[in-house]
Amino acid sequence: MQDHYPTRRTGEPQLFARAEPVARRAWQPGAPLSAEQIAQFDRDGYLVWEDVFSEAEMTVLQSETGRLLGDPAGLKDETVIAEPGSREIRSIFEIHSQSPLMARLASDERLAGVAGYLLDDEVYLHQSRLNYKPGFKGKEFYWHSDFETWHAEDGMPHMRALSMSVLLAENTPNNGPLMVIPGSQHVFVACVGETPDDHYKASLRRQEYGVPDENTLAELAHRQGIVAPTGRPGTVIVFDCNTMHGSNGNITPFPRANAFLVYNAVSNRLAAPFAAATPRPEFIAARGAERVVPVSG
Amino acid sequence: MQDHYPTRRTGEPQLFARAEPVARRAWQPGAPLSAEQIAQFDRDGYLVWEDVFSEAEMTVLQSETGRLLGDPAGLKDETVIAEPGSREIRSIFEIHSQSPLMARLASDERLAGVAGYLLDDEVYLHQSRLNYKPGFKGKEFYWHSDFETWHAEDGMPHMRALSMSVLLAENTPNNGPLMVIPGSQHVFVACVGETPDDHYKASLRRQEYGVPDENTLAELAHRQGIVAPTGRPGTVIVFDCNTMHGSNGNITPFPRANAFLVYNAVSNRLAAPFAAATPRPEFIAARGAERVVPVSG
Repeated sequence: MQDHYPTRRTGEPQLFARAEPVARRAWQPGAPLSAEQIAQFDRDGYLVWEDVFSEAEMTVLQSETGRLLGDPAGLKDETVIAEPGSREIRSIFEIHSQSPLMARLASDERLAGVAGYLLDDEVYLHQSRLNYKPGFKGKEFYWHSDFETWHAEDGMPHMRALSMSVLLAENTPNNGPLMVIPGSQHVFVACVGETPDDHYKASLRRQEYGVPDENTLAELAHRQGIVAPTGRPGTVIVFDCNTMHGSNGNITPFPRANAFLVYNAVSNRLAAPFAAATPRPEFIAARGAERVVPVSG
Repeated sequence: MQDHYPTRRTGEPQLFARAEPVARRAWQPGAPLSAEQIAQFDRDGYLVWEDVFSEAEMTVLQSETGRLLGDPAGLKDETVIAEPGSREIRSIFEIHSQSPLMARLASDERLAGVAGYLLDDEVYLHQSRLNYKPGFKGKEFYWHSDFETWHAEDGMPHMRALSMSVLLAENTPNNGPLMVIPGSQHVFVACVGETPDDHYKASLRRQEYGVPDENTLAELAHRQGIVAPTGRPGTVIVFDCNTMHGSNGNITPFPRANAFLVYNAVSNRLAAPFAAATPRPEFIAARGAERVVPVSG
């Protein structure tokens, strides 16, 4: 299969223009987002969508989150990732197959329906996880494009995937919120270095390969700025698979938590990895997943 | 000498009410700050004072900052502190005695005059330093009250000192700005543990003693909130010696730099440390410093 986005091949960083659309379907009557929301997602590579879920729905999801974080022994061992240098939980993967409530969330038409609309295809879950940044000692998450990793290590051919981060706790400017570089989804930043075997075991805690170079980051950030969307629980942050993002650490007492759902177009299913010897395991990058049928009510 | 603020004595954290004023002089005609500014400093323990220095002044100070950071070999070795796990400079101490420009800044009446007014006394420089948080890899600075350390390790008897942070680069919500807990200056949080010998050598990079406990921090932050003042170069952030503050790390490409000047009342000169075997060296905690005569023009 042709590699449109070569990365981790040379010692020099390279930039490639994105040759495919971001929002794949224009607004039309009955669309689940406004024309302005679709235009913003297309232009900036992200969208802050407020009050998607009600307080009652969030109470249920927050209590389920507490249950999952509080009883990791009940989860598949490999899906629980700790903070670097600590045993505190940083992520739990595959939440949709370990929690019926999270499965229901992932197939909710407000999420899956919008994903399908923006990607103009049926979708399936490439990955799901619960991200938790504890108070006092939450660590930073360095800049990266998710697509760079999904392409290099998972074999995702095209930029036809997006992520939805459902805020489970308030994201303030101070508790290490997601930061994005608006418009960065239009450029593919090829990274240097080769992917070591079993890289994912370390990279889920702290990434060392697939890291963009400082010069490119500085140029992007100086030209396009950095935005840190914040919001109450129930807000959903939608972002394109190639939007450059990261987050600072968190010394405040306020933990940050979100349910992170990655939808990929069924026409964009994984091939062999483009820059790794073996694909990552199913719980990080689904190969056999069925399409999601959006449900409501 | 009586110890009004016992700390690092027991295994349990303790809280003591502050028995002395914050702003020691009420507004009167001719005061260098407005009545509202003085009231805010008194109530919140900090004040964001915008546009104190002109662009032309900032250009000179920024270029001096670049010179100091760029040629640390020309500085007294012990005054240059690196980031934990790195050789990147985090702080340069005693800038007022190593740079005539920084000495001029420290005695500028806009700073020294205001310090003397708020403390209602003549003042001297307890400490001065250049703080630099590099882009991409600037590390966090955990919550602390400066006074707790100055009292325990330097022998500062009373809360009659304040800090002025002169912003040399823009502080945004995203590049690890100073965070304060408004009103926290009214409470002294006694810390647990004993001060090890030569503690300052490690604590200037990462503090392990004189660290407030998580429960107290959570209670303060839940009750009083967290504020991260931001500002352009030329802004001065004034804060009381006992205001609880800290900062997150900085993965953005935008470095953060400030000149940090600590003014102490001459009536509050250092005694023997209240919770350490030997006092810290002169470049961190001045004992023989002359009073600052404010200059203008």
